[in-house]
Amino acid sequence: MTDLLWPGDHRAGHTFSDAAYLTAMVRVENAWLGVLVDAGIAPASARTDLTATISAADADAVAVAAEATGNPVPGVLELLRDRISGEPARWLHRGLTSQDVVDTALMLCLRDALDRVRGELVTQVRTLVALADTYRDTPILARTLTQPALPTTVGMKVANWLAGILDSADAVAALPVLPVQAGGAAGTLAAATELTGSPTDAIALSGRLAAALGLADSPPWHTTRSVITRAGDTLVTCCDAWGHIATDIATSSRPEIGELAEGRGGGSSTMPHKNNPVLSILIRRTALAAPSLAATLHTASAASVDERSDGGWHTEWATLRTLSRHTVTAAAQTTELLAGLVIDTDRAAANLAAAGDLLGEQRAMTELAERRALPDYTGATGHLIDAVRRRAHHHLTEAT
Amino acid sequence: MTDLLWPGDHRAGHTFSDAAYLTAMVRVENAWLGVLVDAGIAPASARTDLTATISAADADAVAVAAEATGNPVPGVLELLRDRISGEPARWLHRGLTSQDVVDTALMLCLRDALDRVRGELVTQVRTLVALADTYRDTPILARTLTQPALPTTVGMKVANWLAGILDSADAVAALPVLPVQAGGAAGTLAAATELTGSPTDAIALSGRLAAALGLADSPPWHTTRSVITRAGDTLVTCCDAWGHIATDIATSSRPEIGELAEGRGGGSSTMPHKNNPVLSILIRRTALAAPSLAATLHTASAASVDERSDGGWHTEWATLRTLSRHTVTAAAQTTELLAGLVIDTDRAAANLAAAGDLLGEQRAMTELAERRALPDYTGATGHLIDAVRRRAHHHLTEAT
Amino acid sequence: MTDLLWPGDHRAGHTFSDAAYLTAMVRVENAWLGVLVDAGIAPASARTDLTATISAADADAVAVAAEATGNPVPGVLELLRDRISGEPARWLHRGLTSQDVVDTALMLCLRDALDRVRGELVTQVRTLVALADTYRDTPILARTLTQPALPTTVGMKVANWLAGILDSADAVAALPVLPVQAGGAAGTLAAATELTGSPTDAIALSGRLAAALGLADSPPWHTTRSVITRAGDTLVTCCDAWGHIATDIATSSRPEIGELAEGRGGGSSTMPHKNNPVLSILIRRTALAAPSLAATLHTASAASVDERSDGGWHTEWATLRTLSRHTVTAAAQTTELLAGLVIDTDRAAANLAAAGDLLGEQRAMTELAERRALPDYTGATGHLIDAVRRRAHHHLTEAT
Amino acid sequence: MTDLLWPGDHRAGHTFSDAAYLTAMVRVENAWLGVLVDAGIAPASARTDLTATISAADADAVAVAAEATGNPVPGVLELLRDRISGEPARWLHRGLTSQDVVDTALMLCLRDALDRVRGELVTQVRTLVALADTYRDTPILARTLTQPALPTTVGMKVANWLAGILDSADAVAALPVLPVQAGGAAGTLAAATELTGSPTDAIALSGRLAAALGLADSPPWHTTRSVITRAGDTLVTCCDAWGHIATDIATSSRPEIGELAEGRGGGSSTMPHKNNPVLSILIRRTALAAPSLAATLHTASAASVDERSDGGWHTEWATLRTLSRHTVTAAAQTTELLAGLVIDTDRAAANLAAAGDLLGEQRAMTELAERRALPDYTGATGHLIDAVRRRAHHHLTEAT
Repeated sequence: MTDLLWPGDHRAGHTFSDAAYLTAMVRVENAWLGVLVDAGIAPASARTDLTATISAADADAVAVAAEATGNPVPGVLELLRDRISGEPARWLHRGLTSQDVVDTALMLCLRDALDRVRGELVTQVRTLVALADTYRDTPILARTLTQPALPTTVGMKVANWLAGILDSADAVAALPVLPVQAGGAAGTLAAATELTGSPTDAIALSGRLAAALGLADSPPWHTTRSVITRAGDTLVTCCDAWGHIATDIATSSRPEIGELAEGRGGGSSTMPHKNNPVLSILIRRTALAAPSLAATLHTASAASVDERSDGGWHTEWATLRTLSRHTVTAAAQTTELLAGLVIDTDRAAANLAAAGDLLGEQRAMTELAERRALPDYTGATGHLIDAVRRRAHHHLTEAT
Repeated sequence: MTDLLWPGDHRAGHTFSDAAYLTAMVRVENAWLGVLVDAGIAPASARTDLTATISAADADAVAVAAEATGNPVPGVLELLRDRISGEPARWLHRGLTSQDVVDTALMLCLRDALDRVRGELVTQVRTLVALADTYRDTPILARTLTQPALPTTVGMKVANWLAGILDSADAVAALPVLPVQAGGAAGTLAAATELTGSPTDAIALSGRLAAALGLADSPPWHTTRSVITRAGDTLVTCCDAWGHIATDIATSSRPEIGELAEGRGGGSSTMPHKNNPVLSILIRRTALAAPSLAATLHTASAASVDERSDGGWHTEWATLRTLSRHTVTAAAQTTELLAGLVIDTDRAAANLAAAGDLLGEQRAMTELAERRALPDYTGATGHLIDAVRRRAHHHLTEAT
Repeated sequence: MTDLLWPGDHRAGHTFSDAAYLTAMVRVENAWLGVLVDAGIAPASARTDLTATISAADADAVAVAAEATGNPVPGVLELLRDRISGEPARWLHRGLTSQDVVDTALMLCLRDALDRVRGELVTQVRTLVALADTYRDTPILARTLTQPALPTTVGMKVANWLAGILDSADAVAALPVLPVQAGGAAGTLAAATELTGSPTDAIALSGRLAAALGLADSPPWHTTRSVITRAGDTLVTCCDAWGHIATDIATSSRPEIGELAEGRGGGSSTMPHKNNPVLSILIRRTALAAPSLAATLHTASAASVDERSDGGWHTEWATLRTLSRHTVTAAAQTTELLAGLVIDTDRAAANLAAAGDLLGEQRAMTELAERRALPDYTGATGHLIDAVRRRAHHHLTEAT
Repeated sequence: MTDLLWPGDHRAGHTFSDAAYLTAMVRVENAWLGVLVDAGIAPASARTDLTATISAADADAVAVAAEATGNPVPGVLELLRDRISGEPARWLHRGLTSQDVVDTALMLCLRDALDRVRGELVTQVRTLVALADTYRDTPILARTLTQPALPTTVGMKVANWLAGILDSADAVAALPVLPVQAGGAAGTLAAATELTGSPTDAIALSGRLAAALGLADSPPWHTTRSVITRAGDTLVTCCDAWGHIATDIATSSRPEIGELAEGRGGGSSTMPHKNNPVLSILIRRTALAAPSLAATLHTASAASVDERSDGGWHTEWATLRTLSRHTVTAAAQTTELLAGLVIDTDRAAANLAAAGDLLGEQRAMTELAERRALPDYTGATGHLIDAVRRRAHHHLTEAT
């Protein structure tokens, strides 16, 4: 799965691809069979390995079949029932509803995406800490509202980026373990209660499924969708932080400014000599597209009704997938962007000097107001960098 | 190309698929070679048929290569140059820039999508006119703010849907012929001017390309993107109209109301007897997702800068594609939904009667105020239906 | 009405203010009384001038009262009935429903906003034509993906901005005359039919109301809301065009580039010497906020249901108002921005020269490929400017 | 401050009103003067009470003045300097930048809004716990995809709503104490460092300001805006939960279903006898509008650049305010909605019985599959309700 119209999409690889999602659905059904056996409901012979039964080649047929019922699960079940028999076929999906499988499979794919994002964030934190150290005292012009303001340091600029990355990493880290969904046809565990003969045992089935899949146990959340919106908000928060960095780099890579450049810029079809900040541009693109996708997840959540929604739920699936893949792609691009970042300290110094007259004015003004020995015009940047570094250190310790 | 997480996506078929987009890019390069030959710039031997040179199997490689330059065109050119030689290879892409090819190919794919939408709208208009005729005088309860209001007719309800469809069809019809993009590296036609030796002749090349592809000639629009946003707004306007219809049908298909039903509802994985309004639900889903996508196109347009944008442009491609495919899918689903619509006039009458007390009150109140012979409590519905029918007739005459 | 958190909002003045909207509602009720008299339904003594009856001071009370019924009309009617008597009181609102008044008043306020926008666009077109003429041949560097590309002219840059403005002006000009809403309680004109005794006469009342208010006659559009979404899309299209210009100016006003500057930049609370591109920044702000507001109008439209929506309709009012006021504000700011624009042609020349090596490479490459006398490296810019100027001339002729 | 076009807005009262925001800015300046005195930088005579100096009547003038500099702070300072003199005037704002004041004042107003929301959520939790208890075993039809599914209980439905409310309350509770902003002109604390003579002391000033205002100390976050987006995401998450409840109630209040009704429905201008679910409709409205506003905050955050953004920052202020007021309004409306909720258990039972045939089929199907004594067809609802009740109890214990 690639997206010709979203350059870089291949970086997301199989994450949340059609094939990965199909596999995830089958894993859920498979795990459920195991749960039924383990709980003594189904005979041991119902245990099987369904995952070998279905391959990526089935994705198209399942996709086409999904329209008749509105979701892909019945099509998967039909395929599985064609290919298996006996006890596994008899016990397949017993006690589950389509939404249980769709949602739990979403969680499995989302977890993969979040794992990818988490890993990239750790690398980014390391790179930025190193950059902040290297350029801790390197002077550069701070700009506000596009205009020269005061001197700051490259280390301080990097520390600000790092603060954004740490905010994102905190948001990802604060996500609870993603929950299983196993509420049955109406979210009441009615079938599971019938199967087990006891509500407590029915609820325990949900817990067993969660454990088998490494998810958190949860009461059914068929129409309370904050799990989805929170994930979406977290992903877009990451994209915001990368968009900020990419905008700074794209702006600074203008030759008239020339303080920053991508390590490997891209040429063009007619001007191969160009050093376009391609990664920055593609990351900015993601930051422009992501907020709307997260908004759609909220709109969908708010449209929840009854015990299964009449459209809100269906809106989430592809939206969450697109947002996840875009985020993973932008994560990897940002990691590469930061690793290759070229900082032209001479240009930074020259631009700062060129803005000197303005700063002279400001300084004079301040001095007039307050006669003191000026310790250093870059203010508290060193201490502020240290504060972010401590946060980064804490994050790296926790994350690894 | 299917989307397992967007049931019904197969209805969009090849429209704006990766393969279709790849073909469209090659068609643009091919047509341009023809233009160069026709204009006497390239020798006749430069004319070739590139479209056989590249197949859908190349899409993945082109997609992966697209990241290095930020767009898929250089990768396409590299593939083509590997596979052709001589004059076609020498003249390939001469005078164009990547954005020319990306944008013109977008227009070709968008045109396909709009053609599909236009066709579905015509069918929908026909179906709705027939329904309005059939149920012109069939009484049904009008509801406002979820509560019973007054009697209306099924024909009037249908005419309201039809008015929304006609608004959408008007918006589609009002779209100008989509424009070619052929501005060269900086949108100045510099290379084309060099090639032809004259600005006028350079501009004429753009016109020739437009003619060859059935597009409208246009000055370069590299950073003025209302073509894209207008298309997006039009597509979402269609989705709004369908969302309205689908919401009405989903609501009325609740058994407690029971006035409307889908011809072929969908069962579920555990309750195959259910008659879920699946098409309505999937159409509602599209209506929930589409507005955000169109908003992203505006955000991207507003981010235009310089002579080629640093991210805004790149945001458009996949967003326009997703919106186009979703709209085509919803178009086809709505056509089927309307064709199969089941109207239970007995239930409509019963619900109306059950609301009678309220209506009696209202009538009494009105009568008190104004003693007259009441012509018909459904007011001017007949005349209002006629007005929409006339609009529909006009549209069908124009559209076919 | 000002908005402390939206600097510049005062430029929108009374457009779509609470007071203006209150007045608009009263104008609708007043015009309807006149219609009833003119049609011979109400006695001549029912004609009055309600507009003097209610003042801006009533807005708060009406606003508070609006919650009980969900819209402000019943509160307005109660106030009016407290202050008038006799035939006007007896005939007030007879035959209308709240939505008729809310929607028609929205149209009156929207018309004011569109008039303001239209006027600003004409001025902007004039200013840009003059700039394109003055700087027709002034060389400046074209940049793509933030990097130097080729020479272009200031006139060409301005012509591109102008093309965006003309696209917006075309969109505004293509809006149909805004429609009246007069469908009665269920959009069937039932009460009006009772009052007049004839559906045709009932429909004629709607036409009379439209004529009295300078609106277009229309069948009821209680749940077909493309009028609203189209207006929203048009407003945001304008904001996109201004955002593009503002982004170009904000970027070019960076001292390292220095090609463009605002005539009157803003200082800061601590650095009064700064020349911040304040108007550009505030216009960019609007362009960042507007797309989401227009998207909300689509989401609301798609949520239409029954004969009056259960929330979708209510979502539109404040959203349309905010979008309208923001657009009017940005319109006026852009007019001022363009009128005061400072173009530093020396810096433009210097930046172009500094990029010379790159351009030399490109030229050499092209010359190698094709030996010809180079007419002018700025390509067809002169002719392209002329084409936009012709469009502008046509627009000014039509608009005035 | 009321919003005539957003019925119910008066419930937000002064929260984040222009007057409240003006006061908040003055409070920040006032607290900063105190900080300068307490730190021994300014003389004791610089301490004053600025809050009495400016009143709501100044808001308009400050709003108008805000355009020249792009933010309201310079206008506030000018007013203050006109009205005070001596040491307070001399030390006013010394060491701060406009963004420090704008952002810290935003935090103060946001805190008020969050306090309101938090309080309403607690009340809602209490009400829902009581409802879940009362109707714990009351049978009602569960519906999926608009169609009858299985029996559930009213208590289970309420528990699902409660779960959404608790998710929202958790999100609000997880928000960190809102941070102060005090970075100075370029976010480097340069002026504060000059004033104090030491970076550590400069940073301590920020801490003192935080303490004085009850905010959290924080390094400057001028261009890392996750504080804003996280607040926005949290507010919209609340609106989602209320939208879900309101949609359920609006749907169930259709007379054909009739299971739920608002305690005090609203009439209409022509049909005063109607019992429109007005609160539900207005809450649904908020849920339709809120996601786009939160998306705008993300778009703005991602547009961060340099040491102060050129538009992104400015986009946040009014957007956060509108979202905050809408959320507070919807919070209060939902509290009232739940407090007055009327549950018609007879209709619930009748609707369930009417769906019996379908359920009979399902039961038969299940029984065929698995011969067991059926404990209770409402499955594990009791235990699931208990789980949510425990969560609610924990929340109430923590929150109060």
